[in-house]
Amino acid sequence: MVSKIDELAVSTIRGLSVDQVNAAQSGHPGAPLGLAPAAHVVWQNMKFNPKNPKWINRDRFVLSNGHACALEYSLLVLYGFDLKVDDLKQFRQLNSRTPGHPECKDTEGIEVTTGPLGQGISNAIGIAIAQKQFAATYNKEDIKISDSYVYAFLGDGCLMEGVSSETSSLAGHLQLDNLIAFWDDNRISIDGDTNCAFTENVPERYKAYGWNVIEVPNADTDLDAIAKAVEDAKQTKGKPTLIRLITTIGYGSLQAGTHGVHGAPLKPDDLKQLKKSWGFPEESNFYIPEEVADYFAKKVVENQKYENEWAKVFQQYKQKYPKEGAEVQRRLDGKLPENWKEKLPQFTSKDKALATRKLSEGVIDAIYGELPEFIGGSADLTGSNLTRVEGSVDFQPPSTGLGDYAGRYIRYGVREHGMGAIMNGIAAFGANYRNYGGTFLNFVSYASGAVRLSALSGHPVIWVATHDSIGLGEDGPTHQPIETLAHLRAIPNMSVYRPADGNETTAAYISAIETNDHPTVIALTRQGLPQLENSSTEEALKGGYTIHKVENPDIIIVSSGSEVSISIDAAKKLKDEGINASVVSMPDFFTFDKQPQSYQFSVLPDGVPIMSVEVMSTYGWSKYSHEQFGLNRFGASGKASDIYKFFQFTPEGIADRASKTVNYYKGKTVLSPLHHAF
Amino acid sequence: MVSKIDELAVSTIRGLSVDQVNAAQSGHPGAPLGLAPAAHVVWQNMKFNPKNPKWINRDRFVLSNGHACALEYSLLVLYGFDLKVDDLKQFRQLNSRTPGHPECKDTEGIEVTTGPLGQGISNAIGIAIAQKQFAATYNKEDIKISDSYVYAFLGDGCLMEGVSSETSSLAGHLQLDNLIAFWDDNRISIDGDTNCAFTENVPERYKAYGWNVIEVPNADTDLDAIAKAVEDAKQTKGKPTLIRLITTIGYGSLQAGTHGVHGAPLKPDDLKQLKKSWGFPEESNFYIPEEVADYFAKKVVENQKYENEWAKVFQQYKQKYPKEGAEVQRRLDGKLPENWKEKLPQFTSKDKALATRKLSEGVIDAIYGELPEFIGGSADLTGSNLTRVEGSVDFQPPSTGLGDYAGRYIRYGVREHGMGAIMNGIAAFGANYRNYGGTFLNFVSYASGAVRLSALSGHPVIWVATHDSIGLGEDGPTHQPIETLAHLRAIPNMSVYRPADGNETTAAYISAIETNDHPTVIALTRQGLPQLENSSTEEALKGGYTIHKVENPDIIIVSSGSEVSISIDAAKKLKDEGINASVVSMPDFFTFDKQPQSYQFSVLPDGVPIMSVEVMSTYGWSKYSHEQFGLNRFGASGKASDIYKFFQFTPEGIADRASKTVNYYKGKTVLSPLHHAF
Repeated sequence: MVSKIDELAVSTIRGLSVDQVNAAQSGHPGAPLGLAPAAHVVWQNMKFNPKNPKWINRDRFVLSNGHACALEYSLLVLYGFDLKVDDLKQFRQLNSRTPGHPECKDTEGIEVTTGPLGQGISNAIGIAIAQKQFAATYNKEDIKISDSYVYAFLGDGCLMEGVSSETSSLAGHLQLDNLIAFWDDNRISIDGDTNCAFTENVPERYKAYGWNVIEVPNADTDLDAIAKAVEDAKQTKGKPTLIRLITTIGYGSLQAGTHGVHGAPLKPDDLKQLKKSWGFPEESNFYIPEEVADYFAKKVVENQKYENEWAKVFQQYKQKYPKEGAEVQRRLDGKLPENWKEKLPQFTSKDKALATRKLSEGVIDAIYGELPEFIGGSADLTGSNLTRVEGSVDFQPPSTGLGDYAGRYIRYGVREHGMGAIMNGIAAFGANYRNYGGTFLNFVSYASGAVRLSALSGHPVIWVATHDSIGLGEDGPTHQPIETLAHLRAIPNMSVYRPADGNETTAAYISAIETNDHPTVIALTRQGLPQLENSSTEEALKGGYTIHKVENPDIIIVSSGSEVSISIDAAKKLKDEGINASVVSMPDFFTFDKQPQSYQFSVLPDGVPIMSVEVMSTYGWSKYSHEQFGLNRFGASGKASDIYKFFQFTPEGIADRASKTVNYYKGKTVLSPLHHAF
Repeated sequence: MVSKIDELAVSTIRGLSVDQVNAAQSGHPGAPLGLAPAAHVVWQNMKFNPKNPKWINRDRFVLSNGHACALEYSLLVLYGFDLKVDDLKQFRQLNSRTPGHPECKDTEGIEVTTGPLGQGISNAIGIAIAQKQFAATYNKEDIKISDSYVYAFLGDGCLMEGVSSETSSLAGHLQLDNLIAFWDDNRISIDGDTNCAFTENVPERYKAYGWNVIEVPNADTDLDAIAKAVEDAKQTKGKPTLIRLITTIGYGSLQAGTHGVHGAPLKPDDLKQLKKSWGFPEESNFYIPEEVADYFAKKVVENQKYENEWAKVFQQYKQKYPKEGAEVQRRLDGKLPENWKEKLPQFTSKDKALATRKLSEGVIDAIYGELPEFIGGSADLTGSNLTRVEGSVDFQPPSTGLGDYAGRYIRYGVREHGMGAIMNGIAAFGANYRNYGGTFLNFVSYASGAVRLSALSGHPVIWVATHDSIGLGEDGPTHQPIETLAHLRAIPNMSVYRPADGNETTAAYISAIETNDHPTVIALTRQGLPQLENSSTEEALKGGYTIHKVENPDIIIVSSGSEVSISIDAAKKLKDEGINASVVSMPDFFTFDKQPQSYQFSVLPDGVPIMSVEVMSTYGWSKYSHEQFGLNRFGASGKASDIYKFFQFTPEGIADRASKTVNYYKGKTVLSPLHHAF
């Protein structure tokens, strides 16, 4: 039953939220006003420890309509997280911990970075997957160490975005009953009434996905109904729940129910009358009534008990199940097992030629046995991406007969964007998850929205991006990446490995697994590549290195992936013409850029013209080279070997351009492109 | 009623399709075998003229599951398009007209380029929108010149992709009853049975979107049921129709109903038994029975009548409605009205500072009055993108009371990817449509899948991409593009204008409207920018030009958009320090790259160090500069002016780096970065 204190608490949350927007004179007051009651009920019911926001068995809250973040910041303050009213006063100001959209890197208690619509709910689905997988892996009949829920708020915008359709369909299939989502059905989007573009029947759609749908007709004030909906959702087994909250945007404001209250501060008069309606002093700012402060202070203490109780359970668990207990402890400590790399494949030039996607399969196999936190899947290209370990179990609801929740292979369906967002959610769950997703490199673009959030949030997720060039052959230009590597390399905090052979493929995975703070795309070939003579995992872990060294080179060819071996053949050919050519393999720009300058200059020194060779857009390669050989047009459908010949990515084609480069630079002073004036 | 000839025709279509895959030893036989009956029925019912495939009132066919293109190529040959059996023999070979996925640029009769899943059905929805808009604009009570349908085939993969969810929801809202889609429900995707990832109830989902759903339980053989479904769909008013075809992938093959028949050629024995089952010679290849050849030869003649009849109607139309008739004729001729540019805004430096999004609004206003083919919308950011002409009518079903089908403003909802794919469809409809879509620049990334297909297909669509940098301020890094321009500039055949002021904004639109063969992204600021002294529409139409010229410059600063005016201020500051700095405004790389070399060198000559200034990733700028000042990290939430200062994008910050650049290059030979050895 709703008590007076609940009403006061809701008013306080509303007040803190609109005051933030008012202080900043920027932001979104509408959704917080409408959603405060639901937020209050949900957070009351959630188990978490504000003093240890990363406690593994916490319930998680995701604000998919991230623009409503004033609401979440208010809750974090009231619930005793490391955020104060003074931070709220800095809302949307430079270098504050209360940015315009919630960022998990900046603010404790923010589970995932949201704002770009559709991402948060999809992250929440990823979190739910991780929780199910973690629980199924470690829970025992007699001791359960994982039973948390994930709660997500989302708005109409999130529901319109295709990424949420992809992930919601999968969530229904996967029967994720640990997920409770709340649709803020306020019938207003930026263009006005949702009638202008969004008239579908959302509840019926979600039922078609296999969700449980509950309606709360008056979520502006009916806290009991919201609490009952949450209770019903928790009782529902085998289905995620969507709770439809019928709300009024900007509830209580003079502009309530209009688009005007969505994304602009309230007028002073409006603020006054709102505060009056709550029984607050009209001129008050960031007001927290004493009884509300007391109420939340008590909650802060109570909430810490959840982890304390769990810690006892986990202690028993470790005693009774020492092997699993140690493994869980290791994962919670964020440590990889010692010697996890020992079994990773190594090659010599006598080993047979293989596609890097096939080599990647070997690495995945090796890691799979060592790291229980290594899970992944493919966007319906398993047989092409070679992402599934033979004999492994699919992550599936047991009732399907196709696997179980302890399974480590996820069948994503043809849903690249959804996969990307789910991968972020799995990483955000914690427990040291390293999760990967397979698709063609070209279709990582479909997931751009999620990919940039991986980088911004620093999620250590891995894209197994096969068929990485025109080398995919017959599927043609619709499937052949040209701009994709430029796109990905230009994203800050993003590693993009394009290994040239087996040893470099191993390096790519080591780099991707050992990082805690950035995502990695591994671009892999469809076609076979030889194992190179001087290739080295250790060197490839520097991002770039001289793989074919000659004394006093007349030219350096810098290349990546499938073009490295052709470039080495070109160098041998050039030798016959009296031209000394070294070849640099540059599997990852991001990693190379982090090396000491002296090392970088040793690879790309002064005095030698440098030509890049990569069978896609040359855009960006002038950073490391004076001349660029690439493909600044779309590809072609045909046999890979025919296409390579057609575009002259052959030893002859490369040698010809190298020789022109040498001639052009003859007699000119050549400075390394690595020099910078500032 | 099905006749013998229909059955033979279906077998012929199946045979030609599998023989293509067999000849190439690459491709997808499964879907063509399953879909041949539906394809036969649909094409029988379609109105088109194979001898003039661009006839405006043709029914259109879109193969959203583009990997099944062997099916479509077979139909094009049989129906007398400019494609022969010899072309089928070149299936998936380099430079053939039968590439691995259908490309509208290469092959007559292919309406849109498909393959990347979810795009085709979304393009079809765009085509349906264009048809409705065209018909509502020009049809008269007594003479109708547009009444065509669009038919689309799609598979499970298309239904899983979020982009199709976005557009299908919108299609339901828009009541597009001129769209008939066929779902190839064969329960097989690349990972095997769709049960592993796709168990939602598709018919219920589409009903929730407001579609009419019809089921055909046995589409492998029941041509009558398919024909009846098409008839029923045509009778349905106010709703698009989804016809669920329950089919067997690889129908008739020994591998029928399995994933094995999806994407690999049939074995010789299997081919033989198939042909035998059709009553064809077992060893035959590309076999067309005589009666089938006769049947289609007759259809070719008949089909030409449709256009002939229409031409008479259009003749009457032109006589009775000369003004509209002339306008339609002009649009069909692909000509812009003379003098259409006359009213476009021009500015002098005395005009007031304005955000380029506001200046863009002025240009849109001006074009709107001149070009009836200029239509557009926004992904729910109308008030931010400033894309709607005041007093214009929304494109809406009349029953909504919110507009009508002759309306030229589309409320896309929060569906960027869907908007991109629909824009491609509108362009593909023909009738000279120039259509635009508004969103924040950062969220063009959500639409990457559609954007690269715009470029590959050469659709002249326009992205009005506002809030184009950290200058958007408080919304923060989730909304601030960093890599986006690098991504877009690296796409072949893509114009990316970032105008610095009003005259350049006008240039961006002129370029975008006058092209027939490439898309344009126009990146626009949220924040105000001054009208620059030497800015020029004419010069900006060269992609780059010297906007601030000094004699004997010590340095050239090359910049774009909002940083041009700050760079000019920096140049003035440098002058005080005794450094002569010119400033080049480079609004569009793509256009600049097309200029004569002599012009390019006049802008970026030898002998002067060049420094680029752009407040996002420097990736790619080394193409035009020796030194780069940019932002190779994510942005920040705060006031735009604070963020610019924080990252030193101020006259002082730029001047400081310019001066370091001048010092660094002092005494060194400086060659223009435009030089190339090959």
